[in-house]
Amino acid sequence: MKEFQDLALITPEEVENLLSLARRLEAHPEPRALEGKILALLFLNPSLRTLASFQAAMGRLGGNSFVISPDMSIHGLETRRGIVMDGQAAEHIREAIPVIASYADALGIRAFAEREELDHDLADKDYMAFRELVNIPLINMESAINHPCQSLADWKTMDDLGLPRAGGKFVLSWAYHPRALPLAVPSATVHMAAMRGMDVTVLRPEGFELPESIMQKARDAAQFSGGSVTETDDKAAALEGAHVIYAKSWASTKHYGHLPNDEKAREGLKHWCINNSWFDTTQKDARFMHCLPVRRGIVVADEVLDGPRSVVIPEARNRMYAQMAVLHQMLGTK
Amino acid sequence: MKEFQDLALITPEEVENLLSLARRLEAHPEPRALEGKILALLFLNPSLRTLASFQAAMGRLGGNSFVISPDMSIHGLETRRGIVMDGQAAEHIREAIPVIASYADALGIRAFAEREELDHDLADKDYMAFRELVNIPLINMESAINHPCQSLADWKTMDDLGLPRAGGKFVLSWAYHPRALPLAVPSATVHMAAMRGMDVTVLRPEGFELPESIMQKARDAAQFSGGSVTETDDKAAALEGAHVIYAKSWASTKHYGHLPNDEKAREGLKHWCINNSWFDTTQKDARFMHCLPVRRGIVVADEVLDGPRSVVIPEARNRMYAQMAVLHQMLGTK
Amino acid sequence: MKEFQDLALITPEEVENLLSLARRLEAHPEPRALEGKILALLFLNPSLRTLASFQAAMGRLGGNSFVISPDMSIHGLETRRGIVMDGQAAEHIREAIPVIASYADALGIRAFAEREELDHDLADKDYMAFRELVNIPLINMESAINHPCQSLADWKTMDDLGLPRAGGKFVLSWAYHPRALPLAVPSATVHMAAMRGMDVTVLRPEGFELPESIMQKARDAAQFSGGSVTETDDKAAALEGAHVIYAKSWASTKHYGHLPNDEKAREGLKHWCINNSWFDTTQKDARFMHCLPVRRGIVVADEVLDGPRSVVIPEARNRMYAQMAVLHQMLGTK
Repeated sequence: MKEFQDLALITPEEVENLLSLARRLEAHPEPRALEGKILALLFLNPSLRTLASFQAAMGRLGGNSFVISPDMSIHGLETRRGIVMDGQAAEHIREAIPVIASYADALGIRAFAEREELDHDLADKDYMAFRELVNIPLINMESAINHPCQSLADWKTMDDLGLPRAGGKFVLSWAYHPRALPLAVPSATVHMAAMRGMDVTVLRPEGFELPESIMQKARDAAQFSGGSVTETDDKAAALEGAHVIYAKSWASTKHYGHLPNDEKAREGLKHWCINNSWFDTTQKDARFMHCLPVRRGIVVADEVLDGPRSVVIPEARNRMYAQMAVLHQMLGTK
Repeated sequence: MKEFQDLALITPEEVENLLSLARRLEAHPEPRALEGKILALLFLNPSLRTLASFQAAMGRLGGNSFVISPDMSIHGLETRRGIVMDGQAAEHIREAIPVIASYADALGIRAFAEREELDHDLADKDYMAFRELVNIPLINMESAINHPCQSLADWKTMDDLGLPRAGGKFVLSWAYHPRALPLAVPSATVHMAAMRGMDVTVLRPEGFELPESIMQKARDAAQFSGGSVTETDDKAAALEGAHVIYAKSWASTKHYGHLPNDEKAREGLKHWCINNSWFDTTQKDARFMHCLPVRRGIVVADEVLDGPRSVVIPEARNRMYAQMAVLHQMLGTK
Repeated sequence: MKEFQDLALITPEEVENLLSLARRLEAHPEPRALEGKILALLFLNPSLRTLASFQAAMGRLGGNSFVISPDMSIHGLETRRGIVMDGQAAEHIREAIPVIASYADALGIRAFAEREELDHDLADKDYMAFRELVNIPLINMESAINHPCQSLADWKTMDDLGLPRAGGKFVLSWAYHPRALPLAVPSATVHMAAMRGMDVTVLRPEGFELPESIMQKARDAAQFSGGSVTETDDKAAALEGAHVIYAKSWASTKHYGHLPNDEKAREGLKHWCINNSWFDTTQKDARFMHCLPVRRGIVVADEVLDGPRSVVIPEARNRMYAQMAVLHQMLGTK
């Protein structure tokens, strides 16, 4: 595997192989599989889980990693093309990325959405521009519109729990949050659940519809897998019989890039905080999922997060195993 | 060993085993003992020695480590319970700690004293709250009231130097410092020296008495080991015949949490700076110890720190060997 | 090898051995050569390439590293001698360096020039003061006046490209930059090219002459190697027939430490930006070199940096192989 950018770019068989490899490495450690191998981690945005899980993944396989963030360069990294660099930035990403890659066997890049123009972010233009500069195996550690490591981990988590594929009802629910968050996780998640063959409902208030291209991509996956994808603001209908409520906040797509309008759109939506009552008509043992970090009492009530339905810690832990599988396929000799 | 929280919670035999293992690993490296193992290091406060010595310890045993600090999370870590997270912090420690632990085979946590309420800090309430969130082997990298890694290293340093246990006179001396520092090191140190069987004198000005519970804990250890523990402000009596002067500043316990009163209490105490004259009536080859970092010309004179009595560098180096022993017992297969 | 401070302090044969070892490790990885070994990296200034390439180098050889920078200490590191530490800094470099070294098998130190007094920087006084505190193998990761890792990497890069030693024309050209940069790279570079036996021309505007001691050191090396060293502001004569244009900006030596005068001296020098026309009379396949980071459109035009003449990425990559050779010679058992 030369690249791990988007679950939609690999086949269902390749996903199964990665999941199977992740389970194998969880059960049977291979502490010398990647000895002498180096993973470079470039974080253009902060990270806790991603940094820790990748460093742990590489270490468990006997390899090593190093971390670069813009504040390590003398005056930040310039990203604009064709610019005369007479300002603060002393280094351009066009040098920084190839240099970092030149020290490594694989490179992970995190670059959040700019959240100014929706089309720009939907096309993942920043990530695609960085990608052109890399000639070694590349891992998307969350771009403007994707987060395949999270999706692979979430898929494994549902498998581990025995949650059904065909006939499993997956609700991706918008939740309140004081800030206009990126579309990466909801976009990746709706596609992942559809690719897994589940019946997916996107539950969100008006103004927070997922973009049509994202929905279409998920519907395409569902058609192939035998699942389905719908979108609604009817909470009662959405939650009934659900196996999973996957909560996530995201920016208003109607007012994308216009913060005052976005803020107005989410006024009065503070009741979109998942509490126990949301599970009244779900499957009896329905699960609560979230990619973390999560704001307690805002996105989800303590009673859910601290209760038996929550699987947020296994989800986070599976980040490590999913990434071990990706790294093993990219860099392993067997 | 599942936890390394406090020397008082392990037996003297277990201490001897750790010291013996530390000496063995110093003499005979085991660069594959912990291959594929991961140590997570969570620093809620800054660190130089602890970070470097733990990373080096893990690397020397063939394992790997990763470091997390609050500024790596998007907007810091929330620690208060039951809070509605509508402020800056985007992640709660109740998620962060289990997630970090889920990637690792052992976890080290550093969380300094709040220094607001003495009882809160004496009960080590913050560390204890974090501890409840961890289900893997846990190492105290300095809590409000303890620092067992420093104590084990100091014990080894005295053994290495041939400093006597029974009959050895250990003076823990308060020293001037412009800030009200935590009680962790003095509390751990007085107990360690008592547990080692030494005759321990705590030398400090009025208002800087160590808390009674700390003194009682040390006296209990002395009763078992055959040592003794006393407290005084009589410098001449304290220093006479001493084998070790262990300097450390700490906050006024009389004015704990009240910075203006603490400041007033330490006015006029600038002569509590250990210089060569402090060794006039000690043992001829008495040693100067300090856990570092130390302020030159404030806590101790250059003539002592740069002279032959000072063993602060071996103390720091022994942090690594002590921690290698702890990690080897926690994670090693033999 | 106990120290890697300056190419001038090792013999040409030792340089050849390092280059040969670097090539061997590039072709034949040795992922267990340094297992259990620890490299400490102390950065008193920021770094991207040096940090990444050293961490990768150590990891590729099976060892491990840790990074310390002043912001990891509680309130920064004091460097002045004999000071009473009643200010912000809670730790002195006189403790910090020996402590860090005590955890490691080798230590790298980066300490940029103060750029206040030329004689101070030419004598590398800060680095020399740090050096006295270290009793393990020491690597200069860029001091006030030297950068031997960069020089060794540049030498290897020219060897890899088949650029001639005897008869090779090497032009070190000053370039415009908004800030008064250190002399470390130009000083190291002019000596390296002379030691390699090349005919070296330093091309720079008036007021930006390299210091006489630096030029003499390079001339001494040239005398031994059969090369030559000249200095000029005649661009046409300098560039004619060149095999390499190595661009670098540096502070005015005439106005060293006086920023307003330096700024005035570089007014009107913005045309010192290397573009394709600089290669009109060079060798047909002449190369562009630069140590990075580089300001696009200021030091060098995009057309050069993005064109086939530029070898800045191989130069950066060779940092890793050069450093692997140094570490292997310092710490390897074979």
